[in-house]
Order: sequence, then C-alpha cells, then structure tokens
Amino acid sequence: MTRYEQQRRFLKSNFDEFKHIKTDKIKGLAQPPIVKPAHSKSLIIDLPKVSKDVVCNENIFDCINQRRSTRFYSAETLSLDELSYLLWATQGITGINKNGLTLRTVPCSGATHTFETYLIIMRVEGIQQGIYRYLPVEHKLLFMFELDELEQKIDAITLDQPFVPNFAKKASVLFAWSTTPYRSEWKYDISAHKKILIDVGHVCQNLYLSSESIGAGACAIGIYDQKLIDEILELDGDEEFVIYLGAVGKKRE
Amino acid sequence: MTRYEQQRRFLKSNFDEFKHIKTDKIKGLAQPPIVKPAHSKSLIIDLPKVSKDVVCNENIFDCINQRRSTRFYSAETLSLDELSYLLWATQGITGINKNGLTLRTVPCSGATHTFETYLIIMRVEGIQQGIYRYLPVEHKLLFMFELDELEQKIDAITLDQPFVPNFAKKASVLFAWSTTPYRSEWKYDISAHKKILIDVGHVCQNLYLSSESIGAGACAIGIYDQKLIDEILELDGDEEFVIYLGAVGKKRE
Repeated sequence: MTRYEQQRRFLKSNFDEFKHIKTDKIKGLAQPPIVKPAHSKSLIIDLPKVSKDVVCNENIFDCINQRRSTRFYSAETLSLDELSYLLWATQGITGINKNGLTLRTVPCSGATHTFETYLIIMRVEGIQQGIYRYLPVEHKLLFMFELDELEQKIDAITLDQPFVPNFAKKASVLFAWSTTPYRSEWKYDISAHKKILIDVGHVCQNLYLSSESIGAGACAIGIYDQKLIDEILELDGDEEFVIYLGAVGKKRE
Repeated sequence: MTRYEQQRRFLKSNFDEFKHIKTDKIKGLAQPPIVKPAHSKSLIIDLPKVSKDVVCNENIFDCINQRRSTRFYSAETLSLDELSYLLWATQGITGINKNGLTLRTVPCSGATHTFETYLIIMRVEGIQQGIYRYLPVEHKLLFMFELDELEQKIDAITLDQPFVPNFAKKASVLFAWSTTPYRSEWKYDISAHKKILIDVGHVCQNLYLSSESIGAGACAIGIYDQKLIDEILELDGDEEFVIYLGAVGKKRE
C-alpha cells in the first residue's frame, strides 16, 4: 500500500460503507436551509436580467476549443451585465424540483448545492470595490463591506506561488466558493465530501466557458490561505469555509 | 468538532502542511507517464476529425440554460462524429505546454491530467458494443473487448439506487473516468487528491454541455460499485481506479 492510501480511499466510491449508515435525513432530522439567509438590513444590489446579448463568442465549440487558464488581463472592466451572466452560469437557479430543491445551471449530487458564491470585486462597471455575496434565489448581490488594501490582501490569500506571480489582483473579480458541507452530509453523510469537490469542479468549468463566451478569461485557484480567506469573508471555517477560487478578467488583445 | 471533521479537512486548502513536504518531483524522481500506453497489438479505431458540424444547439447560453441531468433517452444512436466530439470536449488535447505536458479542453491543476476515459458503448453508429479506451494523444479509440450481458453488468455497476431506476443501460454510451493518482501525487503529494476530484468535475461539466449541444443529455453517476467496475475495466484498484461516471444518450422529443 502506498503512503497515500487514506487519501486515495477518499477518491473512491464508498457505497459499501455508506449503505449501512443511517443518515440524518433518514433519522428524520430537519433539512438545513438550502441557501444562506441574508440579513434584512443588508444592502442588496439588483443584478440586470440575464441575457444572451452579453455573449460575443457564442459557439460552444469555440468556447471549449479556446479555453485556457488565463492569468493576464486587460485593463478593461467587466460590465454588470457580464457579471450577472457569470453568476447565473455558475450558480443560477433554472428550476425547482419536486422536493423544493433548486436546480441550477450546474449539476449537483442530490440537488444539495452546498456552495455560496463570494465575490471580491476589483473592476466591475458601476460597482464599488469590495466584498459581495451572490443571492441565487433573488439573483441579486449582497454588499458585505469594503476591504482596505484589497490588492495586498488578494496577494496574501492566493499566496506567494512560484511561477504564478500575483495575477489574481489584476483580475476584474475573484470568485470564492464556500461550502456548507452539512447541506450534503445531511443526505449523504460520509459520501458527501467527494461529491462536494466534484460539484465545485462543475461550477468552475462553467465559469471558464462563460468567461470565454464574453471575451474574458478565467483561472482557477486551488492553493490559497484557508484561514485568511475564511476570516476575511467572515466564515467560521468549520460549518462554512472556502473550497475553491476563480479569477476572471477581460483578455488582452 | 463534528464527526465529519476528518472529511471536512480534506475539502480545505492544506498549503500550510504541503509547503513543508518534499514531493517526489522535488526529490528528482522520474515523472510518471502522462497517459496510459497502448499495447502495440491493440485494435485501434480511428475517430473522425472533430468538427463543429455536429453541433446543432450551438449557443453556449442555451446549452447552459437547458442543461439538466438526463435519465431518459430516445432509441436514437450517437454517431461516431458525435462521440468523437464528446471525447474531445472532455479530454481532448488542444496544446502542449513548455514542460511537455498536455493542455486540454478542460483545466487541470499543474496540467497533470490523471484521467483515462473508458467507454462502455451500447449504441454508437458503426461501432460494436463493448469496452473501449480513449487515446487522447492520437485522438483514437482502443478496443478492449466485448462484454457479455452488458446491460446486466451496467445495472450491477450503477447499483440498485432507489429513485434512479437503471437508466444507465439505456444510454448510448457510459463514460467511466479512471484516475492514476500518482501523476498528480508526484507533484502535489497530499494536495493531489482534492485537486483530482475537482478536476473530474471540470471534465464532467464539459460532458454535460457538449451533450446538450448535440441534442443529447448526460447524467453523472457518483454512486457505483468500485470493485466491480475496476475489475471489468481491468484496473488494479490502487494505482488506477474509476472515480466518476457519466451516461449519455439522445434526448427524447
């Protein structure tokens, strides 16, 4: 056996073990909320209605063909229409199933959708710099707060990676997906965690392709300072914490 | 702490621990092969050149908007052109980086691409039923063998899931992605495994969208009999094993 045995086991189907588990759902425990609530006093910002008019590179074949992890961006800002489209493409709600769970633009095991989308906005037209959270049910943005020394903090979050010199702060917006794992653990118990990681991959691939379709580029970021970003986003780091990031900016000519 | 503490830790950035590890790459150990080799006596089948002509639902906005996990399929077969496109969209090589690693239609941490794509083909025009493996470098198919009692075996692989009555055997083709984790462990050691799961999510999302674009539907399958499918595909279950599946078939009108 290799020294990675435990980690490799995590990659596998654990149905033999899972099928004997009495999940919290089976026990009759209450289902957790499907999205994080918004405080009533929060500043809520309307997002433009999602429209295919923002798509300039519309053929899916071309989007798939041209996709690259993009770490160099032009100075051009994203429009609010474009941001609205990217949020919809990654976590937008496109239906409700018979159990009242949301169906989205991305698939998710058991429609448990454990993610919240936080945005660190640097350069989006008509939006002040700062930290925001996407409200998928309302398709709106919740303004959380301004952040002093934004660029230095993004550098700190995304660490000092060799060969990846601090591109994230040059993006227009940094997506940071958190997970609230109990939304899936309630139903899938020890099978939840593999699914959560795969599901955030679904999300990020849509960020890549939707970015391509508006002449922007994305770059996923899997190496980050867990404690720092959780602190900045005011997440407790246990019931909710950041799992993956993606930077987006308009491509250089 | 919750009883899921260990699993939740797996979802997090472990950079604080990872940065102290001397990886096999840093130690100077040889890089593992970037793809699984093909035996010279294997039956290799040419795939048609990938062409956007197969795309009938070309607007990416519509593909994202209409995507649903599709478990009911028409009797219509997939064409070999369509299968060629789906393979390219999920694992096709679109470039080589300066280190000789493949760049593909999907992003992957460090371009380590740990996946091999196996196909259980039921209904594809001009292709006999059986088990195949995709050769991404050559963009060809390797015929592995016929499989007796194909439908019963697919039922057994995809388990007896309540509410998911054996749809997989009605698909035209069942994609089964294996991982060879050492391709990533060599570089990322204990950080490899989170990345591998996210990366297969990237792959499967492209299967969903490319399927939509040809009037087909896909459904990811995360619950499966690990031992059985590894045995059927002749994988050792340790250095290479199945990590995720996706069924594809033409949509019913």
